[in-house]
Amino acid sequence: MSDYRFFQPPPRLLLGPGPSMVDPQVYLAMAAPIVGHTDPAFFGVLQDVAALLRIPFGTSNDFTLALSGTGTAGMEAAVVNFVERGTKIAVFNNGYFSDRLIDMAERQGAEVVKLVKPWGEVYGDEEARAFIEREKPEVVAFVHAETSTGALQSPKAICAAAHEVGALVIADCVTSLGGMPIDLDANGIDIAYSGTQKCLSAPPGLAPVSLSPLALERLRARKTKSVSWYLDLKLIDEYWGASHRYHHTTPINMFYALREALRLIDVEGLQARFDRHKLNHRAFVAGVEALGMTMHVAPEHRLWTLNTPVLPEGVSDVELRKRLLHDYGIEVLGGFGPLAGKVLRVGLMGASSSRNSVLLLLSALETSLHALGHRGERGAVEAAETIYNEA
Amino acid sequence: MSDYRFFQPPPRLLLGPGPSMVDPQVYLAMAAPIVGHTDPAFFGVLQDVAALLRIPFGTSNDFTLALSGTGTAGMEAAVVNFVERGTKIAVFNNGYFSDRLIDMAERQGAEVVKLVKPWGEVYGDEEARAFIEREKPEVVAFVHAETSTGALQSPKAICAAAHEVGALVIADCVTSLGGMPIDLDANGIDIAYSGTQKCLSAPPGLAPVSLSPLALERLRARKTKSVSWYLDLKLIDEYWGASHRYHHTTPINMFYALREALRLIDVEGLQARFDRHKLNHRAFVAGVEALGMTMHVAPEHRLWTLNTPVLPEGVSDVELRKRLLHDYGIEVLGGFGPLAGKVLRVGLMGASSSRNSVLLLLSALETSLHALGHRGERGAVEAAETIYNEA
Repeated sequence: MSDYRFFQPPPRLLLGPGPSMVDPQVYLAMAAPIVGHTDPAFFGVLQDVAALLRIPFGTSNDFTLALSGTGTAGMEAAVVNFVERGTKIAVFNNGYFSDRLIDMAERQGAEVVKLVKPWGEVYGDEEARAFIEREKPEVVAFVHAETSTGALQSPKAICAAAHEVGALVIADCVTSLGGMPIDLDANGIDIAYSGTQKCLSAPPGLAPVSLSPLALERLRARKTKSVSWYLDLKLIDEYWGASHRYHHTTPINMFYALREALRLIDVEGLQARFDRHKLNHRAFVAGVEALGMTMHVAPEHRLWTLNTPVLPEGVSDVELRKRLLHDYGIEVLGGFGPLAGKVLRVGLMGASSSRNSVLLLLSALETSLHALGHRGERGAVEAAETIYNEA
Repeated sequence: MSDYRFFQPPPRLLLGPGPSMVDPQVYLAMAAPIVGHTDPAFFGVLQDVAALLRIPFGTSNDFTLALSGTGTAGMEAAVVNFVERGTKIAVFNNGYFSDRLIDMAERQGAEVVKLVKPWGEVYGDEEARAFIEREKPEVVAFVHAETSTGALQSPKAICAAAHEVGALVIADCVTSLGGMPIDLDANGIDIAYSGTQKCLSAPPGLAPVSLSPLALERLRARKTKSVSWYLDLKLIDEYWGASHRYHHTTPINMFYALREALRLIDVEGLQARFDRHKLNHRAFVAGVEALGMTMHVAPEHRLWTLNTPVLPEGVSDVELRKRLLHDYGIEVLGGFGPLAGKVLRVGLMGASSSRNSVLLLLSALETSLHALGHRGERGAVEAAETIYNEA
């Protein structure tokens, strides 16, 4: 006998900054019976995951795999394997996740220089280049898709300038992988990491990582050991590689889930998936603008995957989110840091990026805002439908 | 269209050093729809996990939780939060996992002293005490249940001696939690970690950790930041605590699975579970001895959860394991390091510790050994049945 009962989660429509909705097929794959982490059948799963991950990353990088931790473990792996005591790292600092990168780099005893911008802004080619040329760092880090602000950073100029001074480039692709083009190879990103619970629409628990040949060369040439054994990419490479040398017991079922989520991306087709994300984003924006709200990020720098509409004057984000959760089972999150109380964070990622999600959310937003005394316009759903009809 | 098909794992009976078999109910719980990591319903899950983990740990420690990584992440958290540059740590080094602890401590720049013994042996009270009194370390680490050897280390004398010199004690409980008594509080262990895929019989992916009040006090008094942000227990404590401050996106479904696995332990009852593990271990040992094999570890120091029978002269562990996997779908692993080619590692943990598993494995072992030319005795199943009948 136990005082505890089998847990039944409440029904939720997840439209926050992650986790996103998970396709039922992915749950099925995840719940398949476990095999050992040295089972030949499991190495087949790993091989498929590596091959399928290369598609949304836009890369032919040999070193492409998923680490046994959430997206943050991917960030930490990028830092602890390429940044050590005294390494000079230049960080483009315009949101929470670049703050976190800086914190991690400082913990290694690195020399951190940063180019700071307000949350929601991004860097033009010229200022990016000037910063890197001036600082001549060994490593450059930026956030491709900033989950705390909804802004997209263009990678190309950063990578070109970094390579001119011999630096490696780390890119946080947590909120872009599988929802927006990353094109690692074409852009020249050396070290990319992501999570599984955003646009890949698998449950959280793994961190996809890809290293360019140059990054791999630097990794192998590194003389000191990384401070992390768990995230030591040299050791993990040996487990994924031909020798399959034991490192740790990998989360088997999470890999089943990731493999199936990636397979569904392959079935949908990458371009079709990007088009879907873009269309649902446009429809959502049209809807919130019809409600008289504005978007925090300038049109040309907006993520399709994470939207930050500005809350109407006098509307509490806590009250609004409570109402959405209670009346509709919809999860969206608020802003934090400098954006606390100012924006909503609405994720339209992976399986959550659908016409039905957008229409239901807009309808619920409209009703809830009016219930909270917001005297804005109506017609959010109609505005969104117009976009869909034109598409 | 995709070249990839839905993955169907081959049927396996997992009797290696982990992962163990997972109860179907745990798969069901794991595949429940995802909710957000800041959803009130999910904080209820975390609270249940903490409460239910205290039972097999044998503790009333407030700080009891599970980290978002496999057991090795638990080990790394223990090290990086309590060992820093110059910390003197004394390690009882008699197997692979204490080797790994040493590697991790050295990566922090710690001063590591060790007491080395051959793999499979353990430490008597007197020698343990003498080592600690002589070295006067700040941290002591030992492996309670050594997965590489099958040996159980008694904690009491180590903890008492450590506390006399003011040291904290780290214990690796990966292969004991949920299968053998740990009694953190009664033994005086300060920092314990484990994995979910051994005797808890959940899939791999989380690392249960418990800190004594003294360890928690030291953690909070620490002046420097841990080299790991991802495994920083101060930050993780804030997410699990009343403030629920965001740290990272936790692997939601893994927590569903762990909660259900722990609930099943609560339903079975801890003592009944220990009795079951002990009985199946005894029956297995009787069976392999009937086959003319010996056990690597002395009777009084054997784990019930991980058994290391010595391979008969001339029998290749690779050939034997291939046969077990191919003919019966049974996974057991071989030894490694100094035990490579010398022992099998047979896990009877959690759902894998059952009469039917033991009888099937013994029968398969007997047939396979004879097929490989081993001219030993027969009667393994009968010997095991005798133990069951006497129980």
